[in-house]
Amino acid sequence: MPFNENASGVYVIAATPFHTDGRLDVPSIDRLTDYYLESGVAGITVLGVMGEAPKLDAAESIALVRQVVKRAAKVPVVVGVTSPGFAPMRALAREAIEAGASAVMIAPPNTLRTDDAVVAYYASAAEALGADVPFVVQDYPLGFSVVMTPEVLRRIVTDNPSCRMLKVEDWPSLEKISALRKLELDGRMKHVSILTGNGALFVDFELERGSDGVMSGYAFTEVMVELVKLAKAGRRDAAHDLFDAHLPLIRYEQQPGVGLAVRKYLLRKRGVIASDVQRKPGASLSVTARAEVDYLLARAERASAAAGYARPTAVA
Amino acid sequence: MPFNENASGVYVIAATPFHTDGRLDVPSIDRLTDYYLESGVAGITVLGVMGEAPKLDAAESIALVRQVVKRAAKVPVVVGVTSPGFAPMRALAREAIEAGASAVMIAPPNTLRTDDAVVAYYASAAEALGADVPFVVQDYPLGFSVVMTPEVLRRIVTDNPSCRMLKVEDWPSLEKISALRKLELDGRMKHVSILTGNGALFVDFELERGSDGVMSGYAFTEVMVELVKLAKAGRRDAAHDLFDAHLPLIRYEQQPGVGLAVRKYLLRKRGVIASDVQRKPGASLSVTARAEVDYLLARAERASAAAGYARPTAVA
Amino acid sequence: MPFNENASGVYVIAATPFHTDGRLDVPSIDRLTDYYLESGVAGITVLGVMGEAPKLDAAESIALVRQVVKRAAKVPVVVGVTSPGFAPMRALAREAIEAGASAVMIAPPNTLRTDDAVVAYYASAAEALGADVPFVVQDYPLGFSVVMTPEVLRRIVTDNPSCRMLKVEDWPSLEKISALRKLELDGRMKHVSILTGNGALFVDFELERGSDGVMSGYAFTEVMVELVKLAKAGRRDAAHDLFDAHLPLIRYEQQPGVGLAVRKYLLRKRGVIASDVQRKPGASLSVTARAEVDYLLARAERASAAAGYARPTAVA
Amino acid sequence: MPFNENASGVYVIAATPFHTDGRLDVPSIDRLTDYYLESGVAGITVLGVMGEAPKLDAAESIALVRQVVKRAAKVPVVVGVTSPGFAPMRALAREAIEAGASAVMIAPPNTLRTDDAVVAYYASAAEALGADVPFVVQDYPLGFSVVMTPEVLRRIVTDNPSCRMLKVEDWPSLEKISALRKLELDGRMKHVSILTGNGALFVDFELERGSDGVMSGYAFTEVMVELVKLAKAGRRDAAHDLFDAHLPLIRYEQQPGVGLAVRKYLLRKRGVIASDVQRKPGASLSVTARAEVDYLLARAERASAAAGYARPTAVA
Repeated sequence: MPFNENASGVYVIAATPFHTDGRLDVPSIDRLTDYYLESGVAGITVLGVMGEAPKLDAAESIALVRQVVKRAAKVPVVVGVTSPGFAPMRALAREAIEAGASAVMIAPPNTLRTDDAVVAYYASAAEALGADVPFVVQDYPLGFSVVMTPEVLRRIVTDNPSCRMLKVEDWPSLEKISALRKLELDGRMKHVSILTGNGALFVDFELERGSDGVMSGYAFTEVMVELVKLAKAGRRDAAHDLFDAHLPLIRYEQQPGVGLAVRKYLLRKRGVIASDVQRKPGASLSVTARAEVDYLLARAERASAAAGYARPTAVA
Repeated sequence: MPFNENASGVYVIAATPFHTDGRLDVPSIDRLTDYYLESGVAGITVLGVMGEAPKLDAAESIALVRQVVKRAAKVPVVVGVTSPGFAPMRALAREAIEAGASAVMIAPPNTLRTDDAVVAYYASAAEALGADVPFVVQDYPLGFSVVMTPEVLRRIVTDNPSCRMLKVEDWPSLEKISALRKLELDGRMKHVSILTGNGALFVDFELERGSDGVMSGYAFTEVMVELVKLAKAGRRDAAHDLFDAHLPLIRYEQQPGVGLAVRKYLLRKRGVIASDVQRKPGASLSVTARAEVDYLLARAERASAAAGYARPTAVA
Repeated sequence: MPFNENASGVYVIAATPFHTDGRLDVPSIDRLTDYYLESGVAGITVLGVMGEAPKLDAAESIALVRQVVKRAAKVPVVVGVTSPGFAPMRALAREAIEAGASAVMIAPPNTLRTDDAVVAYYASAAEALGADVPFVVQDYPLGFSVVMTPEVLRRIVTDNPSCRMLKVEDWPSLEKISALRKLELDGRMKHVSILTGNGALFVDFELERGSDGVMSGYAFTEVMVELVKLAKAGRRDAAHDLFDAHLPLIRYEQQPGVGLAVRKYLLRKRGVIASDVQRKPGASLSVTARAEVDYLLARAERASAAAGYARPTAVA
Repeated sequence: MPFNENASGVYVIAATPFHTDGRLDVPSIDRLTDYYLESGVAGITVLGVMGEAPKLDAAESIALVRQVVKRAAKVPVVVGVTSPGFAPMRALAREAIEAGASAVMIAPPNTLRTDDAVVAYYASAAEALGADVPFVVQDYPLGFSVVMTPEVLRRIVTDNPSCRMLKVEDWPSLEKISALRKLELDGRMKHVSILTGNGALFVDFELERGSDGVMSGYAFTEVMVELVKLAKAGRRDAAHDLFDAHLPLIRYEQQPGVGLAVRKYLLRKRGVIASDVQRKPGASLSVTARAEVDYLLARAERASAAAGYARPTAVA
């Protein structure tokens, strides 16, 4: 599948469905992939943090990649290959690309400190992967404790032709997106795709600031797709109306530690995956939390409808 | 002013107004204090993180405390005394109490690691302050990198009779509040007041989980006051309607690094303070960011009105 | 090979030799293993931090384990299986045990904070490994940013019967060893083997405080073996004389980032391994640094001889 | 007292003596100052980490500065002014300079991450202090979690004319000193004084690499002074002989958490200060630890004598 610096739209962060006994749930993987495609995603990102990547062994990781690549067919698949070392990173990346994946995503180890250390890390990673493996830089300081200035990102993009996309989930992200786009406008940085994450909490303004789309796993993928469409169509108020209708739930879903449990609970409730179990270490929702999610869901449905959108619970 | 373990309501985190040349702006301090009182706060917290506490020297700190205590008169004032050492902490605390403040708030140094180290820290702090100085524990892992389990908080509360309040701003906070209230129900922990912070991003459910109020500096104090009232009156849907109307702006205001600039911009725009300048190191808002805040403010006004509330911009 | 809670002596942290083109250097692995055995080690630890574990992919890791297990035959082999997730940890551990390794070593992820989180982590790890896989807890706050109190270690040891050894490399370690031994004397903790690391910088007193031996990779393994013998024989002054003769070099070798380069340089210089190359990211020694090591080596030889020991450069 | 970029020799990190009831012990401060002067120091640094700076309130801090400045008279006094905020930093710095101190020392807050953030921090600090206050940059990543590359230090030195000295205690420090001196040789950085710390664990080679002296608080100040003399005289073997004689004790004294207790114990034992008590939070030595220090002291005396030096315990 084509994947380049012009990528845009929603590259959904895919959950990884397990059976209640902990095995990969292949039918649910297929159903989830179908749901993402029907929602209109531009791509699928597997083995991200929210995909419980570290909990899969090497064989399971590549099996999951193969399954999703085969099912997704029409859209590019990006594979998280973040690893404490370049050898296992390279091994997974090359297997993934051979299996048909389009690109890989790399977060920095949380021990990096100086600008030069970050730049050198990505240079080594790019060399380990090989020039033919496109990669995405995951810039997520809250999760990884590594802060990259726009200038550091510029150096990484400039030094490594195979860097095609930035997943900007700095907190705050808005001025950073503006700064990166200005570097490009000033001719100081080549164009790369910028997608944003951070639990989609700022996606309304991120799109206005110049991002190309969203790399989020919010349980209502079709809402993210619609948001990107509205923003690209310049329908500002409509985009904010839809976003605001979902913000209470988006906010609830991005709680650290609990967020994935909320997401899987919603995907199961909607019939997309069979079980919301996580592999250890994983959180589960208390009875109270489930009731809170149900309450927010009902409110989001009403608010969505009031804003002129279909009820988000309808799964095709 | 009375301050004990039954404290409830809004203890607003006060901004610290400066003149454009960096001096403390005394008339604005008075106007801001008046605004808080007219909004119906139960207390005022000065010299918190959002009060730019580390940017004031010792003399300015106590001057600010005196000014607010004198003006506030009717409500208790809590003073942030977080410090790298117990001697300066004690010095400020004792001066503040002598000046009429009701309690102090202490965040842990970000180098503490084990449970015992945290418990020992608060024991030493309580000893340094003296038994007659009530204190609030600020539990804010995202800001201070120190994680306190409910059990650790129970130990601190139990060991130190002068600990009267917890400012719970763990992320996530909801299950933690439930766990703390269960410890109390089970007779394992005495009652203390629990207020929440975290930029008010979860205040809707925090109140339902058992918090006694809010310690937030959201620029629309009257909204926080109203939220607490609605929650205490059991008007769940009304509380969420009001909260959701403000959530897009609340979310924007709690961006790290930028949040205080948004807050001061709004307070200035509403005529409460004369200048939104911060002392160094401080952020300022770009033209784009100001326009985003204006846009959100207009939307919040409309949504508030739609939910049946007065326009929040009206300053008494 | 037998491995239990009575393990003692030197469990050398093995370097991983590579060819200059980066491939595993099998003849050097064998020569290095022989050198360790001839030095009198009680066991060999492979795939530790200083064994460049994260730089090997899964296939290389298990190949290395097989090679060393086969060659070492007479002594137990401990395998570092630290991993961001339990699935890859379990996969390597089970393959290693099947290949004849005696135990595995696990360091905590550097994101753990509270006591309970550390205890829960090791419980989950032990469950993932299976009850038949003995494991070593690596307690190395300087490297992993996780601090474990003696009480936390007691809980881990008590909760998990398959925990047989602690690698104590807290900094400082001396009072901690005393505290752990006191817990055992008081009947509050079962006996486990305690070995120490931390670049051997405190091994002289650690042995006096009650450690059972050393898990260090200092390039002169025979010196560590002799130190343990002297300490166990109660020859205090002789042990310190030998230790002090090597301390300037030990100190130089434990510099973060550079230490492994010094170690491999010395092993190559002594003819044990063919190349001192490291896989990326790795440090190399400047000309000045090599000259400093040579200078220290000459001094260590003289001082060793003066203390009555053979020149440490003689490799059998 | 003159203090400029050509400063060299030993700027001892002064301990802060307290009475057993916690008050500043003025006679001991005077005796300690005399001891430092008689040892031949080039300067005295007060209110460093090892001077328990955060445990003094503002009034005590300036009283201590006045006392030492008056007593030291002949040598420059450097004052640690590290603070969470620029206002208290400025307040202490200006009072100290008015009291006769020659310079101040500033460590970065442990929350800084990017190169630009570090550079901006020192620019703001320099501006807050005023152009007439010479300052020392404390580069101590192990203690402060901030890593500064040689390039970052070059930017700080170049941007701020009042920066006159670097306290380099990176770990490792050796290549860094060489890199900084090369920047100067290449004309890319003006000359500044480089002193080293890190518990003096590498001072032997640091002097050979181009440092100008030592900023250490090792309890035997006269040994540090002699070491610098020997190194400057090019007497390499003699310097190493003396250093090696003390290394076992130097190593013991630089244990985190315990080091200051060792240092104060030795200063008390030598009759320099009246009590080795620390203010809270502080460590004390166990009976075993004291015996270990005594043992090391006896060995250091013998080894010093064997190397041709006077017994270091003799206090003038």
